[in-house]
Amino acid sequence: MTATIKLGQLAEFLGATLRGDAEKAITGLATLQEAGPTQLSFLANPQYRKYLAGSQAAALLLKASDAEGFVGNVLVVPDPYAAYARISHLFDPKPKAAAGIHPTAVIAADAVVDPAASIGAFVVIESGAQVAAGTTVGAHCFIGARSVIGEGGWLAPRVTLYHDVRIGKRVVIQSGAVLGGEGFGFANEKGIWQKIAQIGGVLVGDDVEIGVNTAIDRGALADTIIGNGVKLDNQIQIAHNVQIGDHTAMAACVGISGSTKIGKHCMLAGGVGLVGHIDICDNVFITGMTMVTHSITESGSYSSGTAMQPAAEWRKSAARIRQLDDIARRLRQLEKQVGEVTPDGNASSDG
Amino acid sequence: MTATIKLGQLAEFLGATLRGDAEKAITGLATLQEAGPTQLSFLANPQYRKYLAGSQAAALLLKASDAEGFVGNVLVVPDPYAAYARISHLFDPKPKAAAGIHPTAVIAADAVVDPAASIGAFVVIESGAQVAAGTTVGAHCFIGARSVIGEGGWLAPRVTLYHDVRIGKRVVIQSGAVLGGEGFGFANEKGIWQKIAQIGGVLVGDDVEIGVNTAIDRGALADTIIGNGVKLDNQIQIAHNVQIGDHTAMAACVGISGSTKIGKHCMLAGGVGLVGHIDICDNVFITGMTMVTHSITESGSYSSGTAMQPAAEWRKSAARIRQLDDIARRLRQLEKQVGEVTPDGNASSDG
Amino acid sequence: MTATIKLGQLAEFLGATLRGDAEKAITGLATLQEAGPTQLSFLANPQYRKYLAGSQAAALLLKASDAEGFVGNVLVVPDPYAAYARISHLFDPKPKAAAGIHPTAVIAADAVVDPAASIGAFVVIESGAQVAAGTTVGAHCFIGARSVIGEGGWLAPRVTLYHDVRIGKRVVIQSGAVLGGEGFGFANEKGIWQKIAQIGGVLVGDDVEIGVNTAIDRGALADTIIGNGVKLDNQIQIAHNVQIGDHTAMAACVGISGSTKIGKHCMLAGGVGLVGHIDICDNVFITGMTMVTHSITESGSYSSGTAMQPAAEWRKSAARIRQLDDIARRLRQLEKQVGEVTPDGNASSDG
Repeated sequence: MTATIKLGQLAEFLGATLRGDAEKAITGLATLQEAGPTQLSFLANPQYRKYLAGSQAAALLLKASDAEGFVGNVLVVPDPYAAYARISHLFDPKPKAAAGIHPTAVIAADAVVDPAASIGAFVVIESGAQVAAGTTVGAHCFIGARSVIGEGGWLAPRVTLYHDVRIGKRVVIQSGAVLGGEGFGFANEKGIWQKIAQIGGVLVGDDVEIGVNTAIDRGALADTIIGNGVKLDNQIQIAHNVQIGDHTAMAACVGISGSTKIGKHCMLAGGVGLVGHIDICDNVFITGMTMVTHSITESGSYSSGTAMQPAAEWRKSAARIRQLDDIARRLRQLEKQVGEVTPDGNASSDG
Repeated sequence: MTATIKLGQLAEFLGATLRGDAEKAITGLATLQEAGPTQLSFLANPQYRKYLAGSQAAALLLKASDAEGFVGNVLVVPDPYAAYARISHLFDPKPKAAAGIHPTAVIAADAVVDPAASIGAFVVIESGAQVAAGTTVGAHCFIGARSVIGEGGWLAPRVTLYHDVRIGKRVVIQSGAVLGGEGFGFANEKGIWQKIAQIGGVLVGDDVEIGVNTAIDRGALADTIIGNGVKLDNQIQIAHNVQIGDHTAMAACVGISGSTKIGKHCMLAGGVGLVGHIDICDNVFITGMTMVTHSITESGSYSSGTAMQPAAEWRKSAARIRQLDDIARRLRQLEKQVGEVTPDGNASSDG
Repeated sequence: MTATIKLGQLAEFLGATLRGDAEKAITGLATLQEAGPTQLSFLANPQYRKYLAGSQAAALLLKASDAEGFVGNVLVVPDPYAAYARISHLFDPKPKAAAGIHPTAVIAADAVVDPAASIGAFVVIESGAQVAAGTTVGAHCFIGARSVIGEGGWLAPRVTLYHDVRIGKRVVIQSGAVLGGEGFGFANEKGIWQKIAQIGGVLVGDDVEIGVNTAIDRGALADTIIGNGVKLDNQIQIAHNVQIGDHTAMAACVGISGSTKIGKHCMLAGGVGLVGHIDICDNVFITGMTMVTHSITESGSYSSGTAMQPAAEWRKSAARIRQLDDIARRLRQLEKQVGEVTPDGNASSDG
């Protein structure tokens, strides 16, 4: 299952400077603490430098400065974490699917599947859909009418694309993800919700990753749009007509309401929620479990998640939160009273 | 894919007053700003009135008051948004499934599938289940033993109904939804969790919509119940024995704990969480990311979601939240002191 | 569908003391209020004692102390809720799958399926995978290469295990759950996210339950580990390299970030979020919607969820939260001023 690659070959692959035994056989990757004598490891986070000396690893990916004092086999690289990212794929035990169509797949006569694509068992591909070369469509996937998947993609087993979902090149979609579901569009007539057909599609750029059980709804009229290089973790909810800028990343359990636009190179931590119809500019970082209630026009960090306390202490804080308006009013009142009796009383204004 | 319908036909369909060219061919719907010269648009939100004059749309759905000053083709209707909702289905590119059973479907001998139902590829329908006329069951759906789906329903590909799930008429269920999963029922015996069989079922009314990857657990003893006209968005969690009243709507990522009852015509915004065993009365609106910790007996709006600040400011606020009990006590102490030195000191009581 | 069992047989099964008619036929279980004249009920929560007298149940599971005053048929047991848990499985209408492999299943030549396992329709089992005796793999499940499922397990329809997922004995996995998805691992190179192959697997202990649409990612290098007896509700997100100790339970919609370790016998309420790379010790209880931002080294209860208020009141509280730093500073200023004019002024320090 696991590859065996000589250290010299890895140096060549990375363009790294090899210091040590080029013939050393590497069978896998592991952390500094867990690596065995045939595994490669790396030092990216300075706080793990203490584990360098004791590591059993066959060789290490190190920066030049860290390599100086180290006596074992080393691949010297400018960015060990990035080098590890590149090398990791050489040791990935994920099965590679062979090109071709599994005999159980049900494919519409007018769908176009490239001969160099791989279509798994029980896949359904509907009328007018297209799958490009080098793309793997895992077992139990459903590709709706007229949906298009670009070159070099990988759909895990059981991914659903509704109709009119267009996906770029090298896109990875994990199991259970659903693209093109009908967004939550209803008109309220006298208390009864009338469904609005969701006529738009979904447009996904190149080099996107979409996590397990993540949902990206189709647009109501125009398309929902995911930019190039966007990375979405698991269990994320993207509502209709959301637009996400290039290279933005979101951790798990984020929820984005309809028609909200997010800029490029943003990062949303886990559990963040965004209301609908707002704009987030480029280079915004939103910390965990924050509720984003209005547009953001300046890049930077934003928060509203409340950190944990022991429950007994938290109960007191929480009870006081409900009294805050009263507390503020009483403070203002006191300031007035004290200002009257102290000569230098200069109470600040009650915002 | 897209329908072409004459403006006069649309007027007739809606019962609208046509002002303009009845022969004008309409090929789709779009927003005021994006509509092209063969598309219909509408004005529902007054803040978009500024786009009226510049719209390229072939025709507009307008209220009589907005139609007065407008020179293009108009369908005059009392509620343009509701009219758009009705018309949207005429232009929906969603493929219509033909009646009949796909040859790959696996259907128990004693299951009853109406000849006017459509059963997709790789569907499994188990013993005693029933699918009524006009209902579409998408590819990869699983319909458990004795489960029943009423007339005119639409199940997207890959919907799972466990056994004993009964669904009304015209119910729409999006991909990845699971109805009838075994709820989280365990008895703790000396630190070990013993599973409690989940014997109840799920009962879903008419005209319900259930979103992508939403989970509705079966009841522990009696049924979990979803009323008529209920609309559930994506990624919602409904625990065992929850009851949801007619025409209540919930946005994505809501979580409802076991045995909680929600009234009619309620609205829950995204990310709301409800504890178990509480009652929410009719006509309650709960804002985003609120934690509902007790029953609500009066209709109205309820909140606890904290709005975002720049992270540096929020860190200060958050640190102060932990000091709130101390702050409140010190304020009370000050009030006493000041009350002693000022003649008109009338500090309010410390609740 | 429902079993019929004589009360005497149930007494024997439970080792309970029977007081009443051993021949009484029991057809099911229900609550005290809903039980009909052939159903068994139980009293576990003292607040339902008021329903004892009026219950129509055929018989009751009662503690000796509650049985004293009761005149109907009784099974006297030390823990009625635990007894109900045990008996519930006898009345579970869930279909029992017969051993054997459905003819539509696609199973790799070198996969090992025990003859006493049950493999449903359209199941895919890949190279080198193993399914042990007494295990049911529901329709539409996907078992990836080299994945192993121990004895006596039950996988609902449509469960996905990627490759190298090893599962213990008697594990229950609900529909839509995904084990072994590729975790959110990317190295940022000049603003572009480079994917890191997720080489580790998932290791699940014995007697674990995993809820609907829950995601457990594979490890980046080492395995993600779920201990024995762990119970995970629906829609939970477990990131790569998380470790969960034995007999810990989590309610729905919990999200746990990468490499976080949780101890034994912990309980996480619904909607809780944990940051990555922290350690939670044994016997910790975290209340609903809490954000866990740092390690916990002492067992006990922890919270940060804010309870709901009527929206008008909450808006005032929320506005004041933003002013908290200003309020605290002004309070400190007042304390200084008042301390100067009152002889006994002893303001506490501003933490």
